[in-house]
Amino acid sequence: MKKFYIAKARRLRGTPYSSRIESQGLTAYTTYNHMLLPASFEGIEKDYFHLKEHVQVWDVAAQRQVQIIGKDSAKLVQLMTCRNLSKVEVGRCYYAPLIDEQGKMLNDPVILKLSGEKWWVSLADSDIGLYAKGLASGLRLQAEVSEPDVNILAIQGPKSFKLMEKVLGEKVSKLKFFGFDYFPFKGNKFLIAKSGWSKQNGYEIYVENREAGLNLYDELFSAGKEFNVKPGCPNLIERIESGLLSCGNDFDNGDNPYECGFDKYIDIKSDINFLGKKALIQISKEGVKRKLMAVKIDLDQIEMMEEKTLQNGKSFVGHLRSAVYSPHFKKVVGIAMIKKEYWNKKTTFELEIGNKKSKGSICDLPLV
Amino acid sequence: MKKFYIAKARRLRGTPYSSRIESQGLTAYTTYNHMLLPASFEGIEKDYFHLKEHVQVWDVAAQRQVQIIGKDSAKLVQLMTCRNLSKVEVGRCYYAPLIDEQGKMLNDPVILKLSGEKWWVSLADSDIGLYAKGLASGLRLQAEVSEPDVNILAIQGPKSFKLMEKVLGEKVSKLKFFGFDYFPFKGNKFLIAKSGWSKQNGYEIYVENREAGLNLYDELFSAGKEFNVKPGCPNLIERIESGLLSCGNDFDNGDNPYECGFDKYIDIKSDINFLGKKALIQISKEGVKRKLMAVKIDLDQIEMMEEKTLQNGKSFVGHLRSAVYSPHFKKVVGIAMIKKEYWNKKTTFELEIGNKKSKGSICDLPLV
Repeated sequence: MKKFYIAKARRLRGTPYSSRIESQGLTAYTTYNHMLLPASFEGIEKDYFHLKEHVQVWDVAAQRQVQIIGKDSAKLVQLMTCRNLSKVEVGRCYYAPLIDEQGKMLNDPVILKLSGEKWWVSLADSDIGLYAKGLASGLRLQAEVSEPDVNILAIQGPKSFKLMEKVLGEKVSKLKFFGFDYFPFKGNKFLIAKSGWSKQNGYEIYVENREAGLNLYDELFSAGKEFNVKPGCPNLIERIESGLLSCGNDFDNGDNPYECGFDKYIDIKSDINFLGKKALIQISKEGVKRKLMAVKIDLDQIEMMEEKTLQNGKSFVGHLRSAVYSPHFKKVVGIAMIKKEYWNKKTTFELEIGNKKSKGSICDLPLV
Repeated sequence: MKKFYIAKARRLRGTPYSSRIESQGLTAYTTYNHMLLPASFEGIEKDYFHLKEHVQVWDVAAQRQVQIIGKDSAKLVQLMTCRNLSKVEVGRCYYAPLIDEQGKMLNDPVILKLSGEKWWVSLADSDIGLYAKGLASGLRLQAEVSEPDVNILAIQGPKSFKLMEKVLGEKVSKLKFFGFDYFPFKGNKFLIAKSGWSKQNGYEIYVENREAGLNLYDELFSAGKEFNVKPGCPNLIERIESGLLSCGNDFDNGDNPYECGFDKYIDIKSDINFLGKKALIQISKEGVKRKLMAVKIDLDQIEMMEEKTLQNGKSFVGHLRSAVYSPHFKKVVGIAMIKKEYWNKKTTFELEIGNKKSKGSICDLPLV
């Protein structure tokens, strides 16, 4: 597959850590929320094996925050999501599908309530700040919407626990999954959550002070030598194998949250007020006609720039949305939107690329 | 300067023309509106000289349309921009700064009214569709907001006139600057505007049918041989020399339209209703304290990932936002946000990169 360079510009913002990761062996970038996001260091297969065994420090500053402050902040955040936020606690992270008035997906952030009238919506890749601004202006809400200079470092991998304990103290290792709290390091306080976009365990450090963040970055690498720490990034193989969905890849504004398997984050029964509630009630009555599932395909490589059609003979089975070669399964694995009549896991399909047809099979998410 | 690959994914959508430009010598991509946008073929200097002498076909599908349809469509479009759209005509393009309620820049699209209740907002790089959706929902407007499958081809360069006349007929060469109309080609109709993001003359073809667009693409190359046609893309050197501003590079949500020199597109005196009007009235009273200007710097290369500080001794002069080496001026040229006390064109400044200080000077936009 041909490779192309990325043209840099201020429009695709560098992060506080860019010069560090570039000198630490970065090979590929992607972009995310108008910012550079590392995509590969030693190649995604080597990165994958390392992530599953050791610990990595990820520059995920591109996971930008929409900050919403004010008397109506809770109302505005709730308006955008079908997840019931009425009992949200400070100190917990909430994964929440954001939808539009038609009940279609806009983003799947983690939401953090920092205090009574201050929220962070920690974004996947779309300008939810503009949606929030539009709603706040249209509804005359007292809610100030901004993008604070928060640049997340994720510490991921089975040894993340040991590394974080060594650098930030024993207390950080007591954090429960999706809990967050503030922890001191050399005179600065860091919001740290036990979270991250892998299933290899880890933490996300919401860095609010660039210089303090760089000091912490360097300390993580020097303290991490004994754990074989390396720079890393969200890994395409690991996240597909783990069934972590990617906004813009696996779903987009054409899909509803039921089709994405987000049922447990949808509350159409209580009296909370969110946009798209009517639409979701209707969809729920009718039931969905397709959903996201995992697939395995007899191929040793694949390139995705758009969804690809899966066929069973002449019948349409679904659309492949994400895919990558998995060294574990020794085939291409992927995530696809599958038509209801093919939800039976014994279904096989063909995928045609160029003039070559390959066979594949459907399985539940996550892959096993 | 180190180069990095771009990692492909469905999230950074390919265009209908991607496979063609990749086999025609593409070397670098950028991303724009969640889509791939070509950034270089033979290198931006070679591309620049060719663009200024011949004709290029650009895959600018990433210039996505926000389509707004419905009884309240005109009201919604006007709400987002400080340009007076009350007398807008079908068949004309309108460059218009979009702002938020604080009077800060969100985008600088070209707006096309296609019929009484159908508009296209032809975007720079931000999700204005989400802003429009938020406003429409918040204000209960009858306006349907969507992103149609429109994939623009730009034909740019001094020979664009001849090429377009040869392929689409004499009538197309009668189009006036920023006029648009429909033109037939092999049984399909194409919306064509005399516009484009260069000052070398040209057209933008709003392709609504992918297959018809590919046929037209191929015809442009086969008919264009005698004009030395090549694939191209928005050229960083040409656009900075021409003073064409880039949203996200030269300005962002921290800047107001007066600071960007958009005064002639601001109407705070008539009774039109747009968000941010109060804020702009206030800013207009106070006057701006900085504005975008051109700069020349004694350097032979530069890389931009964030704005860079310009100093005069110990005094802050401004922020460099975009910059590139210009083979015409034989130095780096750029666009910078300059503090009022330095608007005098005789000001010089220093720019420090690494430990190296370079001298520069300020001039009006566009560079001469």
